[in-house]
Amino acid sequence: MKFLLIIAHGSRRVVSNQEIYQLTQQLQNIPSQFQQIRCAFLELAEPSIPDALEQCVQAGAQEIVILPYFLSAGRHVAEDIPQAVHSKQLVYPQVKMTLAPYIGQAPQLVELLLKLAQSTVSPML
Amino acid sequence: MKFLLIIAHGSRRVVSNQEIYQLTQQLQNIPSQFQQIRCAFLELAEPSIPDALEQCVQAGAQEIVILPYFLSAGRHVAEDIPQAVHSKQLVYPQVKMTLAPYIGQAPQLVELLLKLAQSTVSPML
Repeated sequence: MKFLLIIAHGSRRVVSNQEIYQLTQQLQNIPSQFQQIRCAFLELAEPSIPDALEQCVQAGAQEIVILPYFLSAGRHVAEDIPQAVHSKQLVYPQVKMTLAPYIGQAPQLVELLLKLAQSTVSPML
Repeated sequence: MKFLLIIAHGSRRVVSNQEIYQLTQQLQNIPSQFQQIRCAFLELAEPSIPDALEQCVQAGAQEIVILPYFLSAGRHVAEDIPQAVHSKQLVYPQVKMTLAPYIGQAPQLVELLLKLAQSTVSPML
């Protein structure tokens, strides 16, 4: 059983966290190598990274790919997320936990940005 | 003359801001409808949004598309960026300023996430 865990920052705005739940739902609707796709938050929303990893293990995950939903390699991506995952990995050495690149590293992001910029836009006046 | 202005949050980490400068450089290397592509930061890095818009106008921009490089619609995307652009739009009504969707709204992001998750990953142990 291979799981995907999307890690977002978490926000005080409920709407922002809901965007992540919806994204996770959309991901689940696409056929992939993952039996389950879940999300977790670094702070300000639930579940936390340790809680989500625990729930994945309890649900039978043998392998968990963790993907940071962040655009740049700030402290959260460079330190906080790897540390949180590593701590849980030590508790469950039999579960293979791997860290995917953060979304800002996707090479396709540049083309996507240009497409978006050339799509319909709202005038300011 | 049509310009594209990418707006990032800005970070205390120099490396994170450099990622944005590099992204802007990559964007400039792709043929598009934009004569110039620049970046600006909401806070913690230079140029600010008002400064960058001012520089675009001084450089001859007749149209500026502003694209928020943000994954979710927090207060920055919903209020701060539109307000900053609107204030400058009032100073230069002859320059057409338009707001593109933030990157988190790109429908292709879901597929891109799955591709990234299925790419090479680093084991935690």
